[in-house]
Amino acid sequence: MQDDHTARLLVRCPDRPGLVAAVSGFLFRAGANIVESQQHSSDPVGGTFFLRTAFHLPGIGADRDAFERGFAHEVAEPHGMTWRLRCPEDRTRMALLASREGHCLLDLLWRRRTGELDADVVAVVSNHRDLEGEVDVLGVPYHHIPVPRDGKADAERQLLELLRAHRADLVVLARYMQILSGAFLEALDRPVINIHHSFLPAFAGAQPYARAHDRGVKIIGATAHYVTEELDAGPIIEQDVARVDHTHAIGDLERVGRDVERVVLARAVLRHLDDRVIVDGSRTVVF
Amino acid sequence: MQDDHTARLLVRCPDRPGLVAAVSGFLFRAGANIVESQQHSSDPVGGTFFLRTAFHLPGIGADRDAFERGFAHEVAEPHGMTWRLRCPEDRTRMALLASREGHCLLDLLWRRRTGELDADVVAVVSNHRDLEGEVDVLGVPYHHIPVPRDGKADAERQLLELLRAHRADLVVLARYMQILSGAFLEALDRPVINIHHSFLPAFAGAQPYARAHDRGVKIIGATAHYVTEELDAGPIIEQDVARVDHTHAIGDLERVGRDVERVVLARAVLRHLDDRVIVDGSRTVVF
Amino acid sequence: MQDDHTARLLVRCPDRPGLVAAVSGFLFRAGANIVESQQHSSDPVGGTFFLRTAFHLPGIGADRDAFERGFAHEVAEPHGMTWRLRCPEDRTRMALLASREGHCLLDLLWRRRTGELDADVVAVVSNHRDLEGEVDVLGVPYHHIPVPRDGKADAERQLLELLRAHRADLVVLARYMQILSGAFLEALDRPVINIHHSFLPAFAGAQPYARAHDRGVKIIGATAHYVTEELDAGPIIEQDVARVDHTHAIGDLERVGRDVERVVLARAVLRHLDDRVIVDGSRTVVF
Amino acid sequence: MQDDHTARLLVRCPDRPGLVAAVSGFLFRAGANIVESQQHSSDPVGGTFFLRTAFHLPGIGADRDAFERGFAHEVAEPHGMTWRLRCPEDRTRMALLASREGHCLLDLLWRRRTGELDADVVAVVSNHRDLEGEVDVLGVPYHHIPVPRDGKADAERQLLELLRAHRADLVVLARYMQILSGAFLEALDRPVINIHHSFLPAFAGAQPYARAHDRGVKIIGATAHYVTEELDAGPIIEQDVARVDHTHAIGDLERVGRDVERVVLARAVLRHLDDRVIVDGSRTVVF
Repeated sequence: MQDDHTARLLVRCPDRPGLVAAVSGFLFRAGANIVESQQHSSDPVGGTFFLRTAFHLPGIGADRDAFERGFAHEVAEPHGMTWRLRCPEDRTRMALLASREGHCLLDLLWRRRTGELDADVVAVVSNHRDLEGEVDVLGVPYHHIPVPRDGKADAERQLLELLRAHRADLVVLARYMQILSGAFLEALDRPVINIHHSFLPAFAGAQPYARAHDRGVKIIGATAHYVTEELDAGPIIEQDVARVDHTHAIGDLERVGRDVERVVLARAVLRHLDDRVIVDGSRTVVF
Repeated sequence: MQDDHTARLLVRCPDRPGLVAAVSGFLFRAGANIVESQQHSSDPVGGTFFLRTAFHLPGIGADRDAFERGFAHEVAEPHGMTWRLRCPEDRTRMALLASREGHCLLDLLWRRRTGELDADVVAVVSNHRDLEGEVDVLGVPYHHIPVPRDGKADAERQLLELLRAHRADLVVLARYMQILSGAFLEALDRPVINIHHSFLPAFAGAQPYARAHDRGVKIIGATAHYVTEELDAGPIIEQDVARVDHTHAIGDLERVGRDVERVVLARAVLRHLDDRVIVDGSRTVVF
Repeated sequence: MQDDHTARLLVRCPDRPGLVAAVSGFLFRAGANIVESQQHSSDPVGGTFFLRTAFHLPGIGADRDAFERGFAHEVAEPHGMTWRLRCPEDRTRMALLASREGHCLLDLLWRRRTGELDADVVAVVSNHRDLEGEVDVLGVPYHHIPVPRDGKADAERQLLELLRAHRADLVVLARYMQILSGAFLEALDRPVINIHHSFLPAFAGAQPYARAHDRGVKIIGATAHYVTEELDAGPIIEQDVARVDHTHAIGDLERVGRDVERVVLARAVLRHLDDRVIVDGSRTVVF
Repeated sequence: MQDDHTARLLVRCPDRPGLVAAVSGFLFRAGANIVESQQHSSDPVGGTFFLRTAFHLPGIGADRDAFERGFAHEVAEPHGMTWRLRCPEDRTRMALLASREGHCLLDLLWRRRTGELDADVVAVVSNHRDLEGEVDVLGVPYHHIPVPRDGKADAERQLLELLRAHRADLVVLARYMQILSGAFLEALDRPVINIHHSFLPAFAGAQPYARAHDRGVKIIGATAHYVTEELDAGPIIEQDVARVDHTHAIGDLERVGRDVERVVLARAVLRHLDDRVIVDGSRTVVF
């Protein structure tokens, strides 16, 4: 599962015979050794083909342009592929957004520090000041962009500017309790991962733990998904659950839920950084 | 957890000091040895008190009337308790309803045969003939009550008559794909347990696996609940889940789901038969 | 995950560049469409390469010999591959062995009847008569081979004869409580899957639930593994667990455990029949 | 499950009729309102009775002596009870020991800061300096007691002195990789909770992840237990697991395992602080 120093190729195209042969033949001729490879076809007939290949190819960094031109010309164009290559030196620049609750944010920062998350945290942004002290102590820059009731558009403008200035190529909503507008998401044009504190599609929207308590569920959960304009409806990356019972008050559900939330978000971010997640309409392929 | 040959007392009343002392004092004076006892208060202030006590009291069967009169007079009436006593000889008479899919029905029948479910199966009823052979072979009477599109009321009349004739005091919907009317439920006046093939409240209603597939969830589940007039909204008794991924077609979700459904339903029925489930509004207390 | 009407190719060889290209190139030239493909390398350097490919190739049944000769000559021999091809018409002939407890045996027979397990059950064998009635009713031949204390060698001879006569190519120990000798396993020369009622390597050997109770574990489990001469030490195919607590007596652990055992065994058999399991020394690759 | 401002009474004695009546009668006469109560009997005949009762009794702090004398005289002595009372103001003084890996230690410190763990951390002790910076930043005193190969007895003497000086009444081994001697444990005479990075009794001792990898298990786990003289054999408080497969190298098992370890340890410490854990020989009752 670990593939330091490997390059990764992600491919997506209409399914048809010969795709694996074409890609693996190209890689073989280029001198690459395939370390790991997964493929998926969304439908046996007329489906979409998805491929993730991790391979060793010493010197690909130096020769990247040639490799990319060759692949485009010989493989991707003839088969109508959408594709992207990640070389070992391409590090993701990640911005973390949170509001008042720090468990997801601090967990990601800790995983960054220990090297478990192989990415740079270029900024932490919050609409509150509650977590400033905890983040400062870790030496990570903390930006406070308040979102007043009548100042949402302005706040989104500031946020967009900041994310662009830091060239963030992944935004993680680590319990950021503001809804991002469709216009903002379109302008940002970068993947945004959110952690929702319920087992979606149950309890989309506000106050999921209170509603789970009312409904008397015996299991609660958390869901990490890509953010789309429709609230809590984006493609799901990862979910997990925890068992609860009638003795759990809402506060207990929140406590138990925090442990699920941070693990689910971390797994989703880890898989995204590993280039294991490909969006397929309203669903994801997670290799 | 096993309490053969024990009597069980279930109590529910407004919470206030002295309830445990009152009940346990009465049992001690009656010569009973408490084997297991659970209590729950729905709210520290102004809540409802729930108690389940299992106790050894040799000869309670013979002396039941005196015990019940004494408990009513000395304990239940002064504290405004709703209560019921189950003696070791009180066996539940269970009716099982199914449609075309046999996994839940056959599982319950198998658990009955091995003695795991301590109850009598007085009838199996189905609106189809598909499972007749499988059930006949086990020596359990199979009743076919078809539910034609325009004959639902008539079918419910037949069903009600049959359940009354067999004096069923628990009805289990083991993948019975008909909605029971409020009028039927009221006339029946017995608990009805249903297994819904999703992790409620997600995917209430029809075709939950197809909708789970569309939504791209990473975990599917099943929910056993008491049936109320509102579809799939009754108090939840038990839930469980299974992990799935992008490789699972709808048929795979159904296959994986069957294993969750039958275990969740069996656990719910087992707990009900053990008098461990008390309804608390839209929720359950499961001791 | 379902691949009816697909052929499957399993490959194992020393890892080196070009293996995927060689296999997928051959399949492409043969006119096959790869539906699913997984590979694994046991070690980035000097490891073993494992591949499972499922593909559509209409008419492969008729032309099997040519396909196999071609693959052997063009791909397998040059790369030192161990391999096997399964065509859609190759049905596994499965023998089920049990002793007195029927939950695993009946579960597999039920899955066979519903078509979930795509194999033929050619014989049920037991050293006891307890389950004879349950099996007869299902129309499956039941063979009673008692294993007296001083007649183990003789019993194994009878068993071997019977399995050979029925041309069983998979033997499943569905709670068969006899240890099979190394000589028997060698003579049989067919895979044997066992379900052990603990979370191996904890509680290998006899009475695992009693020992789990003594040790006060909070989770119990079951393990399906290939049988080797060393007791409960063969390559693990699948494991799962269930949560228990201090209220569970040994009998409760057995009850809870039965549900885990039958699901774990069924999953292992299903994966084996799907050609998803490859043995790698003391471990398995499960695609 | 939360019971701030409640007192808790833990009782243990030979089982016999009248115990619940005796305790609840005393509490009622004292003016207490029972909020939560659990009992367990280790055996229906000749077993040990365990009880945990949480109750509201305003002013118990002021009148504690009278309450304790009364309970001892009227209830505990006549029934041969071992018991202890925790009043709301009795805060546990907790010492945390770690070696080089910080995930469990930092997790507990974070839970302490957020108020989830209701206890004081009086000292962090390590045999290494690796975590000093991380702990200092949080304002918690860090003590370095190295354990040279030939200086173990001396190190234990220093540790004992330090724990006594800080009046620690709970010691948590948050990945402390030194074995504490029987003499030390006896002299300390306080509960010590350890997290072991395997699903005990599998892989007791050193290098559990490497051994789990060798054995090819499909599920890994972690175990929190009270420390006794015999290594990794003390009474288990909590366990949990995570699913792994053939793609996980040892480093992946460690990564996945860290998330299980910190949650299992936190749950065990939380339950201990809530007075929910009673040792019963080699097992625990966890209410």
